Amino acid sequence: MRIPSSVSMIEVGPRDGLQNEKQMLPTDAKIALVRRLAAAGFREIEVTSFTHPKWIPNLADAEEVVRAVRDLDFKAFALVPNRRGLDRAVGAGIKGVTFVFSATDGHNKRNLNRTTEDSISEILVLEDETRRMGLDTRISLSVVFGCPFEGDVPEERILSIVGRLADAGSTRIGLCDTIGVADPAQVHRLCARLIGRFPSVSFELHLHDTRGRALANMLAGLDAGITAFDAAVGGLGGCPYAPGATGNVATEDAVSMLTAMGVRTGIDEGALLHAASLLADWRDRPLDSATWRTGMACKAA
Amino acid sequence: MRIPSSVSMIEVGPRDGLQNEKQMLPTDAKIALVRRLAAAGFREIEVTSFTHPKWIPNLADAEEVVRAVRDLDFKAFALVPNRRGLDRAVGAGIKGVTFVFSATDGHNKRNLNRTTEDSISEILVLEDETRRMGLDTRISLSVVFGCPFEGDVPEERILSIVGRLADAGSTRIGLCDTIGVADPAQVHRLCARLIGRFPSVSFELHLHDTRGRALANMLAGLDAGITAFDAAVGGLGGCPYAPGATGNVATEDAVSMLTAMGVRTGIDEGALLHAASLLADWRDRPLDSATWRTGMACKAA
Repeated sequence: MRIPSSVSMIEVGPRDGLQNEKQMLPTDAKIALVRRLAAAGFREIEVTSFTHPKWIPNLADAEEVVRAVRDLDFKAFALVPNRRGLDRAVGAGIKGVTFVFSATDGHNKRNLNRTTEDSISEILVLEDETRRMGLDTRISLSVVFGCPFEGDVPEERILSIVGRLADAGSTRIGLCDTIGVADPAQVHRLCARLIGRFPSVSFELHLHDTRGRALANMLAGLDAGITAFDAAVGGLGGCPYAPGATGNVATEDAVSMLTAMGVRTGIDEGALLHAASLLADWRDRPLDSATWRTGMACKAA
Repeated sequence: MRIPSSVSMIEVGPRDGLQNEKQMLPTDAKIALVRRLAAAGFREIEVTSFTHPKWIPNLADAEEVVRAVRDLDFKAFALVPNRRGLDRAVGAGIKGVTFVFSATDGHNKRNLNRTTEDSISEILVLEDETRRMGLDTRISLSVVFGCPFEGDVPEERILSIVGRLADAGSTRIGLCDTIGVADPAQVHRLCARLIGRFPSVSFELHLHDTRGRALANMLAGLDAGITAFDAAVGGLGGCPYAPGATGNVATEDAVSMLTAMGVRTGIDEGALLHAASLLADWRDRPLDSATWRTGMACKAA
């Protein structure tokens, strides 16, 4: 079992978490949340999404959030689905851009109203422009491990898409288990193939805990050589296709496990729980976080 | 990453699950639960505990449960803490006995009112007698990965205890993360050492999900060579030292993950959820089971 000495954690709660919550977190609280997360040690935080407010009203305050946190000591990323979003993000002073599209036409058409092929063409142009502005970029590839509309996603399709991106110069690609259906054997196999075939790319895992497998899938990723993970404080979010299902892997559960394993994350666990407490006070249901539920009560005396 | 072609699942919900629930499941419902579990394909089910009813009133009907299910097509195990318990279990017609003691004096004294050393001596005698009666036996070693009273448990101590048991002829030893504090690196390291040093022993992992790591720990165990796991339907149980914490790893989550990985368990997932439904109808709070929560809503179309 391969266990790296350190990994990078990318906090995506303010974006992927909040966009899937039914309640709206007030703008001031979002800014306070990002400040607490920055204080906990994250070097990169996805703070919002520049999607049209009609589709994600929870993040209609994207500009305001970015402006309020852009001078803090971390790199603020925002998710950007298209040119209009990129223009808005750049205007607000974003430092990093996460482009997103789906590995299946079925999911991409419902989310971005175009085929995967059309998204690849558009995003490669946008990513190139963004890099030339001196901003950091990454590409998040959705439904890599399973699609709610198309079911299984052939590995060859992922290899083909990643090959297109790598050939065009993309160096950070996120493999997203958008609906939380991956299993550790699948994660290990696909990650090992991708890492072996595309040495110029740094792959990142984005895991949801719908079936309770997120930490097991993270372990499989580690063993395959992945050293960067998205996570959302408080296990924020949810699966839009499964009411009541849990959301992203909880950052505090991931950091707790990794720290126990001797893997450095650079995150202060107490400060991270301070950020989670802001969400616990706000949310109308308990946080989806084993660490938060259990607290320190079971910690060995 | 080592992934075996098949594993043995030992269902312990009727024992380790129900003994830690605040509500009492009526005897008829316990018997119905065990019948449904047997129908789902388990070859071994820990159906109850022959502990003094003063300590575990939830399982005061141990004899009645064993008598009602002993002719079904599976091997009924019961947990036995001492000679009195063994006599009761044998009298009721049990087929398999799980002996239990703790790796630390602190935990053993609170649970069994004696030192670990005294328990080893007593249990080795009882196990030998039980085997000579023609019954199956296994030994569950509690707090292997961490103790609520003594904190970290030195690996050398576990190796020493297991050595004593192996020398005396014990061939099935359960490594129990009683309070759910193990991490995958620890599980992998200790399991690999034990398997390497004691080839005559079949080791079984008993994992709690207090910190959400049970499935990751299971994966680490698989990679180290473990092929037998305890689990409790519905994620029954809890951590007596952490109110609100989840209990045993949910059998349905484990079976779902293993099946997805291509590991045969012999368990029918639909029949297992039929067993879980009995508990969901009874319990005053939701089952601690991602599979149950999510249902099939996220299943790929």
